Amino acid sequence: MRTFLSNVLSGALFSIFVIACSNPSSDAGFHREGPPNVVIIFADDLGYGDLSSYGHPSIKTPHLDRMVAEGQKWTNFYSAANVCTPSRAALLTGRYPIRNGMCSDVRRVLFPNSAGGLPQTENTIARILKPAGYATAAIGKWHLGHLEPFLPTSHGFDYYFGIPYSNDMDAVNDLDRRERFWNAKIEYFHVPLMRNTEIIERPADQTTITKRYTEEAIAFMNSHKEQPFFIYLAHNLPHVPLFVSEDFVGISDRGLYGDVVEEIDWGVGQILDYLRSSGLAENTLVVFTSDNGPWVAYDDHGGSAGLFYGAKGTSYEGGVREPAIFWWPGTIHPRMVTGMGSTLDLLPTIASLANIALPDDRVYDGYDLSGSLIEGLPSPREEMYFYHGTRLFGARKGSYKAHFFQNNPRGYPERMEVLDQAKLYQVQHDPGEQYDLAAEHPEVLEEIAEMVEKHRSNLVPAPTNLESRLETP
Amino acid sequence: MRTFLSNVLSGALFSIFVIACSNPSSDAGFHREGPPNVVIIFADDLGYGDLSSYGHPSIKTPHLDRMVAEGQKWTNFYSAANVCTPSRAALLTGRYPIRNGMCSDVRRVLFPNSAGGLPQTENTIARILKPAGYATAAIGKWHLGHLEPFLPTSHGFDYYFGIPYSNDMDAVNDLDRRERFWNAKIEYFHVPLMRNTEIIERPADQTTITKRYTEEAIAFMNSHKEQPFFIYLAHNLPHVPLFVSEDFVGISDRGLYGDVVEEIDWGVGQILDYLRSSGLAENTLVVFTSDNGPWVAYDDHGGSAGLFYGAKGTSYEGGVREPAIFWWPGTIHPRMVTGMGSTLDLLPTIASLANIALPDDRVYDGYDLSGSLIEGLPSPREEMYFYHGTRLFGARKGSYKAHFFQNNPRGYPERMEVLDQAKLYQVQHDPGEQYDLAAEHPEVLEEIAEMVEKHRSNLVPAPTNLESRLETP
Repeated sequence: MRTFLSNVLSGALFSIFVIACSNPSSDAGFHREGPPNVVIIFADDLGYGDLSSYGHPSIKTPHLDRMVAEGQKWTNFYSAANVCTPSRAALLTGRYPIRNGMCSDVRRVLFPNSAGGLPQTENTIARILKPAGYATAAIGKWHLGHLEPFLPTSHGFDYYFGIPYSNDMDAVNDLDRRERFWNAKIEYFHVPLMRNTEIIERPADQTTITKRYTEEAIAFMNSHKEQPFFIYLAHNLPHVPLFVSEDFVGISDRGLYGDVVEEIDWGVGQILDYLRSSGLAENTLVVFTSDNGPWVAYDDHGGSAGLFYGAKGTSYEGGVREPAIFWWPGTIHPRMVTGMGSTLDLLPTIASLANIALPDDRVYDGYDLSGSLIEGLPSPREEMYFYHGTRLFGARKGSYKAHFFQNNPRGYPERMEVLDQAKLYQVQHDPGEQYDLAAEHPEVLEEIAEMVEKHRSNLVPAPTNLESRLETP
Repeated sequence: MRTFLSNVLSGALFSIFVIACSNPSSDAGFHREGPPNVVIIFADDLGYGDLSSYGHPSIKTPHLDRMVAEGQKWTNFYSAANVCTPSRAALLTGRYPIRNGMCSDVRRVLFPNSAGGLPQTENTIARILKPAGYATAAIGKWHLGHLEPFLPTSHGFDYYFGIPYSNDMDAVNDLDRRERFWNAKIEYFHVPLMRNTEIIERPADQTTITKRYTEEAIAFMNSHKEQPFFIYLAHNLPHVPLFVSEDFVGISDRGLYGDVVEEIDWGVGQILDYLRSSGLAENTLVVFTSDNGPWVAYDDHGGSAGLFYGAKGTSYEGGVREPAIFWWPGTIHPRMVTGMGSTLDLLPTIASLANIALPDDRVYDGYDLSGSLIEGLPSPREEMYFYHGTRLFGARKGSYKAHFFQNNPRGYPERMEVLDQAKLYQVQHDPGEQYDLAAEHPEVLEEIAEMVEKHRSNLVPAPTNLESRLETP
């Protein structure tokens, strides 16, 4: 024990030393004034295994790896849906999509012919932060409704720059899938680029889009230094079709997918460098995560879920477990966190850090993670529900996860089937969901069933706003 | 308390600029005098994905992660065989097992009833270093022959402390597999612990064995400070049966397998701490790697190959791609290396660093990696052959790997089958070996076929010394 303690002690000293060295303004100590700036960087279809610090052997992400080294690497962090629209709705509202209308079994996401979007009655992080004096910007992919009542500027954001839905939409239809995606050209995808409520470019030049999002984010920070700001920077890549700027063509050992991820990594580096050099770093929380697992149906144009089973479109860990990095020099101490977290938790965590009480007019599904981030306390999150549309495909309680459905682990084509007998996995021991323990631990399945029962008894599903379509001319 | 403090340390830590701060004698610059000390730490059945810095979500390896941050993380590093005995023979001799006699299709590894071992005619790293004044020790699992002519002391090592073959051998036979391994007791495995050529304990107390190997390594370094030393520290864990010392029981989120890996990580930390505190760090190369992929036939008592396909006993990447970390403060600059390397390369690299010319009486299969390690040059290794016994299951040239055989990806039971048509994978783009490009790139298959032809034309297979058995009494 003595060796072990001295070991821990020297480790802790080392850690402190590193923080002192790595923090350019450590003289300022751990004090902060006023509510923090918040930047959420959200990748699209990036898999758990696609960063070098999360194990990828061919993709180099030195900026995100440095963010890991200086911040917290969460390894049991979930998106609240396995596809785009509901995942984003959950992040911005802190509520499962079944509560916020962005959930349906008819259509899983919004399309250019959708008439709906995130209902006005929902509170986004931006809307919650506004009364505390925050300047708010949404940059990048929105995908919560492209008509004016649903755009970011109708949801608490002062500013919007980006594409309103996925980068593979509005596609020309007379090309086969391989030509359209593997030899993608900008003009194959007639997706609009918007500033606030105006379309400023169509088709969006996707080759420069990651760079432009990064520049927009830095410009917004730079022009709002005097007040707290909140930036929701949602890259539309590495979702297919893959595009990359000239400087990054061929840069990665991983091929085009790697080039795209490495450009996003570069963008993260630009933002963190700006925060450091402007003196804002010590008052800014930066979060990096992804909306769902990799879209492996696109072969090597899709990413990797690492050691997890499943992919985008599934409720297996590969579809919903995300890289998640929290960075706030001087406030968040570097460590790896194996407790659970979710994009659902960002809203209550940010509200807490900004000292804003959440209005009690609705149910939130998120937990305040600030104690874990700042004080090293265990995560308050002990459960996670895995919805697929309106259906509950699985639920996790502590280290155990029950599956009530099975599906094609590659996501597409879907092969959903309700299981006669639920399956049970100890996902910390068995992250690959390989060894069913249902027969061995029926009592755990019963506990999970009780938990689900309780969750359902408090649940009032919202009417869907995902199915309605524009009238075709 | 331990959990929290070690958490503080954790995360796949510490980016490049931090290292300059954390290296207490970085002022000494990159100068070194005399041949370096060398410590090879070799894990047994540890998978590519089993360290936190290589992507595991539940295993915390802060000491190895720090070693990554301060050293080089190689991500395309191969063992030269997919099971124990030939892998070790290749590491120690720098030659494919087909050249050194530790290769057979009848038995893949040595057993307690084996009469053979690594032939005396082979040169080990230890034997090559002896004339340059090195003190040499083998600590841990040997598995290259347990009879005196084959033991470490007959192969250039001044000192040996460890078990002569695998920790699951000499097992009691009247227990079913589940009882024997999942409820393992020391007395189920009558494996001897040896010091030099004497058995000093039987059955070896495996619960304390990782700790004792660590202590032995430190004691050897401490008593040989005045001369260069070479230590080959081959842990016999996390090979099943899993045992862990009292201090580490229940410490990992990953269960017993994680406890075992975290104890090995602790041992690495002890060794690096010793090197730092003794002032030897700047003159010592430490290498960490593993002998083959995880033994997934043992369910959660086996490890994870991360995003790779396959496992121990296969020539898929999961069977042969290993974590590999090179650490030498002040000499090896921190970076991630995606070029190829192999355990075969350790012998020529170490010889080069020690300024020893290799005798030209035999073929070596290794490359000198010192230019990559020290000067940041591209790795000289451009090819790798994947032998399964005497059969060539596959070959890699650049980023392309051809498979000539297929097998059960879980390794056991074997289901080998020669492929009528070779398969081809671009393993940097597609590390999971999912997308066969044989039809798309027949010219690459041809190039690989030519390379294999050339390799074979220079190859004189050695007579096997793996098959002979002791007479039973």
